[in-house]
Amino acid sequence: MTDIQIAQQAKMQKVIPLAEEKLGIPKDALEPYGHYKAKVDLDYLDSVEGAADGKLILVTAISPTPAGEGKTTTSVGLTDGLNRIGKKAMVCLREPSLGPCFGMKGGAAGGGYAQVVPMEDINLHFTGDFHAIGLAHNLLSAMIDNHIHQGNALGIDVRKVSWGRVVDMNDRALRQVTVGLGGVGNGYPRSDGYDIVVASEVMAIFCLATSLSELKERLGKIVVAHTRDNRTITASDLEAHGAMTVLLKDAFRPNVVQTLEGNIAFIHGGPFANIAHGCNTVVATKAALKLADYVVTEAGFGVDLGAEKFVDIKCRKSGIRPDAAVVVATLKALKFHGGVPVGELENENLEALERGLANLEQHVRNVRECFGISTLVAINAFAFDTEAETALLKRKLAHLDVQVIESSHWADGGAGAEELAKAVVSTVESKPSDMHFCYDDEASLVEKIEAVAFKVYGAEKVTYDTKVGKKIAQLQKEYGHYPICVAKTPYSFSTDPKKLGAPKGHLVKVREVRLAAGAEFIIFVCGDVMTMPGLPKVPAATRIDLDENGKIVGLF
Amino acid sequence: MTDIQIAQQAKMQKVIPLAEEKLGIPKDALEPYGHYKAKVDLDYLDSVEGAADGKLILVTAISPTPAGEGKTTTSVGLTDGLNRIGKKAMVCLREPSLGPCFGMKGGAAGGGYAQVVPMEDINLHFTGDFHAIGLAHNLLSAMIDNHIHQGNALGIDVRKVSWGRVVDMNDRALRQVTVGLGGVGNGYPRSDGYDIVVASEVMAIFCLATSLSELKERLGKIVVAHTRDNRTITASDLEAHGAMTVLLKDAFRPNVVQTLEGNIAFIHGGPFANIAHGCNTVVATKAALKLADYVVTEAGFGVDLGAEKFVDIKCRKSGIRPDAAVVVATLKALKFHGGVPVGELENENLEALERGLANLEQHVRNVRECFGISTLVAINAFAFDTEAETALLKRKLAHLDVQVIESSHWADGGAGAEELAKAVVSTVESKPSDMHFCYDDEASLVEKIEAVAFKVYGAEKVTYDTKVGKKIAQLQKEYGHYPICVAKTPYSFSTDPKKLGAPKGHLVKVREVRLAAGAEFIIFVCGDVMTMPGLPKVPAATRIDLDENGKIVGLF
Repeated sequence: MTDIQIAQQAKMQKVIPLAEEKLGIPKDALEPYGHYKAKVDLDYLDSVEGAADGKLILVTAISPTPAGEGKTTTSVGLTDGLNRIGKKAMVCLREPSLGPCFGMKGGAAGGGYAQVVPMEDINLHFTGDFHAIGLAHNLLSAMIDNHIHQGNALGIDVRKVSWGRVVDMNDRALRQVTVGLGGVGNGYPRSDGYDIVVASEVMAIFCLATSLSELKERLGKIVVAHTRDNRTITASDLEAHGAMTVLLKDAFRPNVVQTLEGNIAFIHGGPFANIAHGCNTVVATKAALKLADYVVTEAGFGVDLGAEKFVDIKCRKSGIRPDAAVVVATLKALKFHGGVPVGELENENLEALERGLANLEQHVRNVRECFGISTLVAINAFAFDTEAETALLKRKLAHLDVQVIESSHWADGGAGAEELAKAVVSTVESKPSDMHFCYDDEASLVEKIEAVAFKVYGAEKVTYDTKVGKKIAQLQKEYGHYPICVAKTPYSFSTDPKKLGAPKGHLVKVREVRLAAGAEFIIFVCGDVMTMPGLPKVPAATRIDLDENGKIVGLF
Repeated sequence: MTDIQIAQQAKMQKVIPLAEEKLGIPKDALEPYGHYKAKVDLDYLDSVEGAADGKLILVTAISPTPAGEGKTTTSVGLTDGLNRIGKKAMVCLREPSLGPCFGMKGGAAGGGYAQVVPMEDINLHFTGDFHAIGLAHNLLSAMIDNHIHQGNALGIDVRKVSWGRVVDMNDRALRQVTVGLGGVGNGYPRSDGYDIVVASEVMAIFCLATSLSELKERLGKIVVAHTRDNRTITASDLEAHGAMTVLLKDAFRPNVVQTLEGNIAFIHGGPFANIAHGCNTVVATKAALKLADYVVTEAGFGVDLGAEKFVDIKCRKSGIRPDAAVVVATLKALKFHGGVPVGELENENLEALERGLANLEQHVRNVRECFGISTLVAINAFAFDTEAETALLKRKLAHLDVQVIESSHWADGGAGAEELAKAVVSTVESKPSDMHFCYDDEASLVEKIEAVAFKVYGAEKVTYDTKVGKKIAQLQKEYGHYPICVAKTPYSFSTDPKKLGAPKGHLVKVREVRLAAGAEFIIFVCGDVMTMPGLPKVPAATRIDLDENGKIVGLF
C-alpha cells in the first residue's frame, strides 16, 4: 500500500478531545480547523510556562542520499513507540512545503505506518501558515517597489534591493525576472527573483521568534535594500512590519494533529535547512516540552547541517536543550557511502557497508563531541536488510559504546519502534546530556565558520576571495555576535556532494555571505544553493487528481 | 466608532450551533474553521437538492462613485431586517480580496451596524479560498514554462502564452515582467505579467461551476497558449486540471459566517466585476435557496455591469432566477451624478439631485425592461441627507411606480432596514418577476454586445477596429454560443467615466476581446481594465498593526 492509501484508511480521532485526553490541553485552548487539525492558543501556552520541561529527543541522521533516510518517519515511529511503553510523548515536526508535492517529491508527513494525519491536508494547504508567510513576504516586496515609485523618500537604490519575492511552487522560470516593466505607471524596472516560500527569511524568523512582539521586532529588522551611499533600509523603515505581523498572527499558533496511532503531533514552521536552520518553530518545541514528558523532534538533513544548526541557532537563543539525539541511518545509504551505485543498494554488500560506516561513525562522534549530547543510532529497517549486515554494523560500532537499534516502524508502526523507545529512555536516564555550542557568541565570524568546518566537517581550511572577505569583515562590525548558518551540500561532510563517507582534510570555500538581520544569523554559502526548485519532466501534478468519490489520488 | 471597532465589540455566537438553529444545517455537515467560520459539506448540499427554493433578492446599485454606494451593507442590513420581521433569511456575499486591504480600500464585509463577522478574518486569510485559487492558477503557470523547458512536446510558442501569474497583493511592479532569465537552467525568457488573484479565470470558473467534476472539466478547458501554427493549448493538454482541482477541493465548499445580529451569511468566491462576472459562487447561492425562505445576494458595481452579468452569465447556465432586485442609491452619489464635486456632497442641493436622478431612473428601468425583474429602490441613508432631498426624490420617481425606501441599517442595523424588508416581501408577493436575458444564446457575439450596449447602456453604436473584428469573427466560430462579459468603467453607463447621469447616443468602442474558455464567456474590453492595482503613496499597511493586547488595529 502507498503512504496515501495507508493514511486514507486511518480511523482518525477528533483532534480536540484527543489533545485533551493525551496532553490535558483544555478544549477552549484549541481552535478547530476542521475536525482533525487545530491550533493551540498562545495565551494557554503562556499559562503553562511554569511547568517542568519534558525530555527532548533530537532525531538527526547520517549524510543522506537524495531519497532521505527517514527522519520524519523515525520521529513519528519513536513517538508512537514511547507511548506504547507508557510514556507521555509527542512529536514536533516541520510543515511540508506545498509546491514540491507537485514536482518529484511526495508528501513529507512520515511514511508507511509511521505517519501523521490527515496526510493530504498536511501536505497541501494545511492551516494556511505558509500562505500567510508568503503573503507577508510579498507585502514587503510590494511596499519596496511602491516606495520607490511614490517618490523614494528613503533613497533606495534600485540596483541594491536585496528582498525578492516568493511563491510556494516549483517554478524555475521565476528564479530570475525583471519587474517594473511597461512604463511610468508600473514603477522602475529592476532585476528581481523568486524563492520558494520556505526559503523566505520571514519563515526563519517565524520559526525563531518566541512571541508575537518578538516576531514583529525581528520582521522590522529585515534588511531589504541599500541606498546609493550604502545606508541600510529595513522593513521598519517602510513601516511594513506591523501589517506583516497581522498577516502572521493566526499562523503563529502551533498546529495540532495526530499520528496514525493517535498520539499528538505539533507541526509548525518549515524553514530550509541550508540557507536557514531547518527545524520547526521554537514556539511549538517550547510548548511541547511543557505538555509532554518526552518530545521527539527533527532537524533537516544530517548532523553536519541539521543538528549543528539546531544547537547553534535554535537552542542558543531559546534555551532549548536536547536530552538525547538519535542518529538515523539506513543500511542502503551506508552502502551508498561505501561506493555502491544506486540500483544495487538492495543487495548484501558487507565490504561496502564497512567502508560506508565511516560516515555514521563521524556523525555519532560529532553529536557527542561537538555538542555534548548523548547519542544512539537507529537503523531505519528495510525488508532487504540482511542479518549479516546488521551484525557487522553493530560489531564495527562497538568501540563507540553507542546503542544501535533496528527499528521497523515504517512496516510495523509504534510496535516496531518499542525497542528504540526503550533505548532512548535508558539513554536519557543513564547518560544525561550536557549540551554545548560548537562556538561561542564572542568568537568572530571567521572563527565560527572555522569551528564548524574543522570540528564538524573535518575540513582543513576555510577559504574565500577578497570580495567575500571584505563582506565578512563588514558584517563582523555590526553583526559579529550572530551565529552562522552554513549552506552547503547535505550529501557530504565536505562541500563536494561526491565525496562520500568521511572525507578529511578538505577545503571549505565560502562563495558568498548573506545577512539575515531579522533571523539573526549570517549565512555562509559554501556551494550551490537552490532556493527555487524546478518541476521534473513529468511533474507529479500530472498524476494528482480527484477520483470519482472525491478522494485524492497520486499524492504520495 | 470605526467598522473594526464595532466588529470587535460584537458578541459572536459559535457558528455551527447557530447555523443549525437558524437554517437546520446539521452539525455534522459543517466543518469548523475556528469557532466563527465553517464550511458546509457538499454531500449535505446534494441531499437537500430536492427542497423548494426560497425567494432570491438581488441587491444592485446605481452607477457608483469610487466610495461605493453600500451594496454589501444594504445586503446585510436587509437580511437582518427580514429576520426581524419573521422571515427565515440569509445573505450570500463575495469574499473580499486580501491584497487591497493593504492599499487604500478598507475591508469589504459591510459597514457600521450592518456587517458580517469575524470581520478581520473575512478580510484577511478567511478560510484560505483565495490562497487555493492563487496556487491553482500558479501551478498551471509553472507547468506551462516547465513544459517548454522540458522539450516542448506540444510546440507552445513562447510568444503566445496567454496565461499569466497571480498574487493577492496590490503590486504594480508585477504588471509586466520578463521571466525565464538567467540562462539555460531557468527556461526560456519571455514576457509575462501578474494579475491580482480575483482577476484569475480560475476564480471565475470556481464561481460558476456547480460541482467538483464540472470544476475540473472547466479548468481543463482553459486556453493557456497557442502553437506557432495557432493550435490551441489547454490546461488539460498539460494534464494540470486534476491537480488544480485537488488544490481547490476544500475551498469549493461554501463558507458560513454570521451578521452582527446573528443571521447566517454564505461568503464564497469573489471574481472581478469587469473582466469577470462579479458575484459569489453558484454553489453558495443554490445552496442558500434550499436552506432559507429569503436569500439576499449582491452583484458588483451598478446594474449595467453587475446585474447584467448576474442575469446573463450567472443565471443563464445555473437556472438561478431572482424574484426581486433592490437598486441601492445614496443621495450623495445622485448629487455627484448631478454635477456636484466631491467635497460638497454633504450639502443639500436639490437641483443637482434632480439632475442626478436620471442615473437611478435608467437603472430601475433597465432592471425591469432588460431583465424582467421586479424592482425597488433603497436609499442607503447618511446623517446629512435632508428631508427635502428625500421628498424630492420620491416625488420625481413617482411616475415609475417603484417603491423607494430609506434604510438606516448602517447606523441602526436590522431595525433600520425593517421597512425595506417589508417592502421587499410585499414586492415579491405582489409583483412576481419573470426574468429574461438581455440576449439569447443563439445571437451572434456582435448581436450580444449590441444588445447590451443599446438596451442597457443606452449607446448608439458599437465600434471596433479590423483586428478586433477579426478576432470576434474567429471566436464566433467555436464560441459564438457563449455569453459575453463586458469590461468597462463602472462609473458611467458609457465607456467614459466622466459621462455621469444617463448619457444617451454614445459609442461603445471594443478595444479587445478575450476568450475565457473555462469560464465559458467572451470578454469584451471597452476601456482601461486594471487587473493589478497598485498601492497608494501611504499604504494602509503602514497603519495596520497589532496593539499590545494582540488586537488588530488600522484595518477598516
